[in-house]
Amino acid sequence: MPKFVNDFTEGNKDLKDLLGGKGANLAEMTNIGLPVPPGFTITTEACRYYLQHGTLPDGLSGEIAAHLAKLEQAMGRRLGDPADPLLVSVRSGAKFSMPGMMDTVLNIGLSDESVQGLAKQAGNERFAWDAYRRLIQMFGKTVLGVDGDHFEHALDEAKQARGVRSDVDLDAADLQNLVATFKDIVKARAGREFPQDPREQMGLAINAVFDSWNTPRAVLYRRQERIPADLGTAVNVVAMVFGNLGADSGTGVAFTRDPGTGAQGVYGDYLANAQGEDVVAGIRNTVPLQDLERIDKASFDQLMQIMRTLETHYRDMCDIEFTIERGKLWMLQTRVGKRTAAAAFRIAMQFVHEGLIDMDEALARVTGAELARLMFPMFDTSATVTKIATGVPASPGAAVGKAVFDSARAVEMANNAEPVILVRRETNPDDLHGMIASKGILTSRGGKTSHAAVVARGMGKTCVCGAEELDVDIAARTFTAPGGIVISEGDVISIDGTSGVVYAGEVPVVSSDVVSYFEGKLDPQSGQADDLIKAVDAIMRHADARRRLGVHANADNGPDCARARRFGAGGVGLVRTEHMFLGERRQLVENLILADTEEERQRALDALEPLQRGDFVEILEAMDGLPVTIRTIDPPLHEFLPDLTDLSVKVAVAGDNATEHDKKLLAEVRRLHEQNPMLGLRGVRLDLVIPGLFSMQVRAIAHAAAQLRRTGKDPHPEIMIPLVAAVQEMEITREMTEKVLREVEEETGVHVHTLIGTMIEVPRGALTAGPIAGSAEFFSFGTNDLTQMTWGFSRDDAEAAFFSKYMELGVFGVSPFETIDRDGVGRLVDIAVREGRAARPDLHIGVCGEHGGDPDSVHFFHQAGLDYVSCSPFRVPVARLEAGRAAIASAGSDSR
Amino acid sequence: MPKFVNDFTEGNKDLKDLLGGKGANLAEMTNIGLPVPPGFTITTEACRYYLQHGTLPDGLSGEIAAHLAKLEQAMGRRLGDPADPLLVSVRSGAKFSMPGMMDTVLNIGLSDESVQGLAKQAGNERFAWDAYRRLIQMFGKTVLGVDGDHFEHALDEAKQARGVRSDVDLDAADLQNLVATFKDIVKARAGREFPQDPREQMGLAINAVFDSWNTPRAVLYRRQERIPADLGTAVNVVAMVFGNLGADSGTGVAFTRDPGTGAQGVYGDYLANAQGEDVVAGIRNTVPLQDLERIDKASFDQLMQIMRTLETHYRDMCDIEFTIERGKLWMLQTRVGKRTAAAAFRIAMQFVHEGLIDMDEALARVTGAELARLMFPMFDTSATVTKIATGVPASPGAAVGKAVFDSARAVEMANNAEPVILVRRETNPDDLHGMIASKGILTSRGGKTSHAAVVARGMGKTCVCGAEELDVDIAARTFTAPGGIVISEGDVISIDGTSGVVYAGEVPVVSSDVVSYFEGKLDPQSGQADDLIKAVDAIMRHADARRRLGVHANADNGPDCARARRFGAGGVGLVRTEHMFLGERRQLVENLILADTEEERQRALDALEPLQRGDFVEILEAMDGLPVTIRTIDPPLHEFLPDLTDLSVKVAVAGDNATEHDKKLLAEVRRLHEQNPMLGLRGVRLDLVIPGLFSMQVRAIAHAAAQLRRTGKDPHPEIMIPLVAAVQEMEITREMTEKVLREVEEETGVHVHTLIGTMIEVPRGALTAGPIAGSAEFFSFGTNDLTQMTWGFSRDDAEAAFFSKYMELGVFGVSPFETIDRDGVGRLVDIAVREGRAARPDLHIGVCGEHGGDPDSVHFFHQAGLDYVSCSPFRVPVARLEAGRAAIASAGSDSR
Repeated sequence: MPKFVNDFTEGNKDLKDLLGGKGANLAEMTNIGLPVPPGFTITTEACRYYLQHGTLPDGLSGEIAAHLAKLEQAMGRRLGDPADPLLVSVRSGAKFSMPGMMDTVLNIGLSDESVQGLAKQAGNERFAWDAYRRLIQMFGKTVLGVDGDHFEHALDEAKQARGVRSDVDLDAADLQNLVATFKDIVKARAGREFPQDPREQMGLAINAVFDSWNTPRAVLYRRQERIPADLGTAVNVVAMVFGNLGADSGTGVAFTRDPGTGAQGVYGDYLANAQGEDVVAGIRNTVPLQDLERIDKASFDQLMQIMRTLETHYRDMCDIEFTIERGKLWMLQTRVGKRTAAAAFRIAMQFVHEGLIDMDEALARVTGAELARLMFPMFDTSATVTKIATGVPASPGAAVGKAVFDSARAVEMANNAEPVILVRRETNPDDLHGMIASKGILTSRGGKTSHAAVVARGMGKTCVCGAEELDVDIAARTFTAPGGIVISEGDVISIDGTSGVVYAGEVPVVSSDVVSYFEGKLDPQSGQADDLIKAVDAIMRHADARRRLGVHANADNGPDCARARRFGAGGVGLVRTEHMFLGERRQLVENLILADTEEERQRALDALEPLQRGDFVEILEAMDGLPVTIRTIDPPLHEFLPDLTDLSVKVAVAGDNATEHDKKLLAEVRRLHEQNPMLGLRGVRLDLVIPGLFSMQVRAIAHAAAQLRRTGKDPHPEIMIPLVAAVQEMEITREMTEKVLREVEEETGVHVHTLIGTMIEVPRGALTAGPIAGSAEFFSFGTNDLTQMTWGFSRDDAEAAFFSKYMELGVFGVSPFETIDRDGVGRLVDIAVREGRAARPDLHIGVCGEHGGDPDSVHFFHQAGLDYVSCSPFRVPVARLEAGRAAIASAGSDSR
Repeated sequence: MPKFVNDFTEGNKDLKDLLGGKGANLAEMTNIGLPVPPGFTITTEACRYYLQHGTLPDGLSGEIAAHLAKLEQAMGRRLGDPADPLLVSVRSGAKFSMPGMMDTVLNIGLSDESVQGLAKQAGNERFAWDAYRRLIQMFGKTVLGVDGDHFEHALDEAKQARGVRSDVDLDAADLQNLVATFKDIVKARAGREFPQDPREQMGLAINAVFDSWNTPRAVLYRRQERIPADLGTAVNVVAMVFGNLGADSGTGVAFTRDPGTGAQGVYGDYLANAQGEDVVAGIRNTVPLQDLERIDKASFDQLMQIMRTLETHYRDMCDIEFTIERGKLWMLQTRVGKRTAAAAFRIAMQFVHEGLIDMDEALARVTGAELARLMFPMFDTSATVTKIATGVPASPGAAVGKAVFDSARAVEMANNAEPVILVRRETNPDDLHGMIASKGILTSRGGKTSHAAVVARGMGKTCVCGAEELDVDIAARTFTAPGGIVISEGDVISIDGTSGVVYAGEVPVVSSDVVSYFEGKLDPQSGQADDLIKAVDAIMRHADARRRLGVHANADNGPDCARARRFGAGGVGLVRTEHMFLGERRQLVENLILADTEEERQRALDALEPLQRGDFVEILEAMDGLPVTIRTIDPPLHEFLPDLTDLSVKVAVAGDNATEHDKKLLAEVRRLHEQNPMLGLRGVRLDLVIPGLFSMQVRAIAHAAAQLRRTGKDPHPEIMIPLVAAVQEMEITREMTEKVLREVEEETGVHVHTLIGTMIEVPRGALTAGPIAGSAEFFSFGTNDLTQMTWGFSRDDAEAAFFSKYMELGVFGVSPFETIDRDGVGRLVDIAVREGRAARPDLHIGVCGEHGGDPDSVHFFHQAGLDYVSCSPFRVPVARLEAGRAAIASAGSDSR
């Protein structure tokens, strides 16, 4: 028979699967001799049995009884003893933290009888009755399903009757009356008496915790966070200790280092004569933890000693909760502490210098997301600022602009070059144009998966959402912040998408020191570099030494290439040649499309070729000695022409006055119009249908490379054919490419070794990667398109139309355009890598979709065996860091 | 050492891999004792060696010499003997027929010397010099690469000099002069003398045949026909026999039964004193084969005997080529003969009745494509008709209409309800609207992969293309047919897409007897049924008995369902509910979309529900007792609103006079506009974002089923969720569906067992089929969308824009929208079937894309293990037939 209950003395921190996070850490602390109240954990296995069968497993009640007896013995009290009752808490604790999702009941063991004994033992009537009313309230709500408002309402009435504002002003008699009222509420609403038998209380509470695993919001939370549905939760039964038994009692929370800055030295808050929930409620002001030394030196010293023990033991910064009951210190919880990005880097290197961890561990403890946060421009909060609210930091960055309250106005003002912040209660698809026009988006409703958040992240636009303190009045074109501050349309505000803070007025923006470091403008060895820069430098060097993945950049011109190179790019993974056809050159492309004769067409190509050649010379020169992967033209040609609807309206309205040019243009726009341009005449299809344009590009690349080679440079161009779905497409374009390369080699007398490969961005390209690799020397995954086609939704249409709803419903927890979808798109990547390499063992494989700079995705690409990732220059450091972390993680899992 | 040469006495008809089709059949005939000129086959293995290494394998020349010696002995003549030379032909012959692709050289062995000997032996100077000039011409062109026009030009000059019009009017002296001229041409153009050594001639000819495997047009042909590139060709060296040695010689072609009707009795043509090429050239008129009995009774009787032998031996109708040389009959070739659709069915059943084959074999010998041809309406050619041309039968059907010469006019006339045939030299994407407006398309240029052919087939529209006899003058709006017949715009013409014939005037159309049979209007046992109907009936019954695949139909209303049932459908595999929102109901959908309040929305839904319920009652009643798979709404809602561009122009032109309704409508159309609607808010996404519409549909289905059940009917509705890409979508819609079903069950008190499943039509749906099957009781592959997303092209945009170019280039041989792409889309189907069944062993799996009625695709779906295919009612018999054939084919391959 399996064992379903673990005493704290039996477990350890590595048993989170079985004991949950809280239970495992309580066991760990118990076993290293820290003062933890005695208790035991009912395992997740018991929960899983219960969820599957609807009943508790056989033998569980016997095990609980045995452990409870042991607990009673250790505490010298018995549960339900009328004279001196043992009280326990029943707390949920799953493997993964699910904040606010799962249930907890405190003070189990109190009844009409034992409350008297507790009062006597504590010498405090009020304390005992307060504990009892809290039990009935929590039990009623959590276990018996009574609406909590009924209790809150009764509490409010009691305070009104006494003319007081705070709970603490109610005396023992008031609370005793409230207990009676609460019991009536339970009877009326739950249809049963509040149970007086403490064992029944405990049993029901345990079942309630198990049941809470499957409440709709817990199910939704897990769906969003991709937590498996069948893990189950553990239940911790812990002896109660009380910090509210007088001046020699108290409670506190602490971090073993400053979680904000990473500064060394403890950091925490203490509240005398209080329980944990009082700290959270914020009714009374806490004092800095240092003050405890004055209040209770013995406990303070013991706590300092414990924190050192925990840091040495966990080899990391920890956060803890503790209670002092009449001078006796109890540790209620510990876990590795959350910290800011800067703190993460600093603390990691502190632990290295202290000899507790090695560089691999330091690298594992910082994330690309943290590094990215350090690279965004920040508000200079040393200036005088007026912070007016804090919302959800939904999309990072620092944005300053005039508040506007509707999209039309936002577009209008943006067209006048005025920076604007779009302020809405919440956004919907109608706000799309306004969001595009704005520097940032601020909403008063909705969380990280709200429409505003999802769409802003997709656009890379700063967003603070769900700033609930703000009262937004669209009709009046104002919003009101706490303290009556009113912001009207046109007033400047500043929003910090990294912290969620909203400021009135313009806050100066400072660039990031970390970016200066990456740009080579800040020497980490110099006095100007603080320990953050030194930590970043040390960890980046280690990441570079460790990583197997190359990191290339997506860049379309010389300056971007140069920047990417400074940021550590080992090549350019994607040059989008169509970007070179914008601006003034759009006219040349229009000429090409409108050409009526072969001569006109050739003239248009002849005009484009020297310009293209110049582009490639600039790029190849900037990346001298490194590979540069150039994608031939990809988008449908109508993208270079005016919009069909706009032009139709223009010609129709002009009527007889419409110009011949416009009429001809309209005919061509109509001819090229596609129902679904993403699935139309683009990519390699253009190369096969309009071979002249393709050959012109190849010729420009070959001539650019030959020209550089003649001046002693070392260009490494690679020609990449987009959108290949069939090996025949690759074979034909390869022949076309080789023909042009041979011609240019004959013309110039210069040979430049040029790889020819393809993007894998169509599902069929991945599914037939074996044959395709026969004609392609490299693959680069275009994961943007691959995601669109694998899921069957276009980013443009889907993000605004239904992504926020999908996240709300938990269809996915993170947009598949942000982080690669391993099950679908990732599976295609795996197939293509495996079968491509089987056909051509030296096939070079990278990724050039936006996922190349996404931390989670970088790990996937490492595991999939890619050679490199390519991303925007700004993301290159993030990708380098994560590539190093991925190498360590897989080395770790290999050695297991 | 492998053996590279096979004597005809050594091989047999099953060795096509090694000997090619021609060689294998020559060996077969030799070995059953038929009079085949002696010869030998150089195997495909030798060719593969040559293609790989660039040289012939060691030992080959020795083997050839040995076989040649044997051949000389058998014929009693020696190659190159000046007195009595042996002549041979060198003929290519690959495993798969590649008509016109590969090379052949006749009369090898002639030289300046031996031509004299041949003349003496034949007693015919002219014959010998004609043979020699043919050798130099063929050899020069095929082996030495001289442009054939040079020889044709010299021949024309010789005829002009003699003032004659035909080759046969040149005498021996003329031909001797021509030989001299031809030899000069070879020397001037090929830079070498015409080789006088017959062994050198033979060696060079063999290499030339091998080389012809890799000519660009052969490579392209194989790419289009999906013939593997590395098979190689065999070479047959055969002793020459001559049918042009006088009145007692001749040549002919024959079929062992009538290939047009299937009628019993031989069928062929004979030409006395002629060679095979003369029959093809059509210079002299052939006589019916029966006349040979009068001319040469002995040979005729022998030939009849041989044809009976061949039929018994091949157990099929054969086509043959033969030559009579001075009263001696020689068989030059045989193969299983091509036949019309009607002949295929009749002949198959004749062989069954003759006891030569069983019903399985008969079923294997007819195809769904043939059955489909028999089901199209046909022109009644018993009426007086004027046949004016024959083109390529590109898309079947019989179309009658007024000839029009441009798309704008076609649209204009079609709008006036005038049936039109679009006539063009060739079509391009600009003609799309005209093609849509027309009953049929006729072009004078291009083959089966031309733009007109590809697009017409995609539309299911009748098309004859490449009718080269027609001179189309677009400017004059006329075309001229042979004999000076001029058709002007507005004149009625008739085109037969099944035969490629073009008629002037209106030819009456008769419906197909086979369709009458399927509709139950023609009893196959009655006197009205001819032997074709009896054959179809027998074979269909056998197919039904053999097939494992169910055949369902796609149908959206009662009459279509009833028709499908008559045609043998075992259920409805796809009801497209959005088809029910067209016509007058479009306004109700518009009301739903434009609703400003929840009440308006509900009112719109309430108006739709009873209509939907009526639809479902009608369908479920028609299919009483059989499963009906109903797909909930799939297309984006903006499809029910006016087009953005049209409405924008309307509102802009109206200016201040634009109605409020139009303005509101335009705002909504703009809001719902999508860049790529195929990848937008549709399918299951609508269900999650606009749950009211979805629930209304489920409620209407449930009520309809309950209503029928109460009247004693047996409805089997199945609810199908479209476009599922993630298991979460399926879980959520399943919960929504079950909730509505429970509610209706409670309201009505009637339980109807209703399966809930999904379409697999997004690549990710297939890639995550395992989890999805956890929530879906059935899968139906939507192979149209799955093809679009797997390839990354939309049918609408791609077919017109680049499919004909893709076929011309050989990227694919058949549109992946016609026949399932096994390597890409098929692989996803295989994955989904395997993993779906692993998760749910009783998962019911079908296909409801248009591939469900395509013969090749039906075989694939059988192999993939599907339970049924679903297709349009008209294709149901085709699918039944092919499902039977697939079962036999896989049973055959299992037993191997």
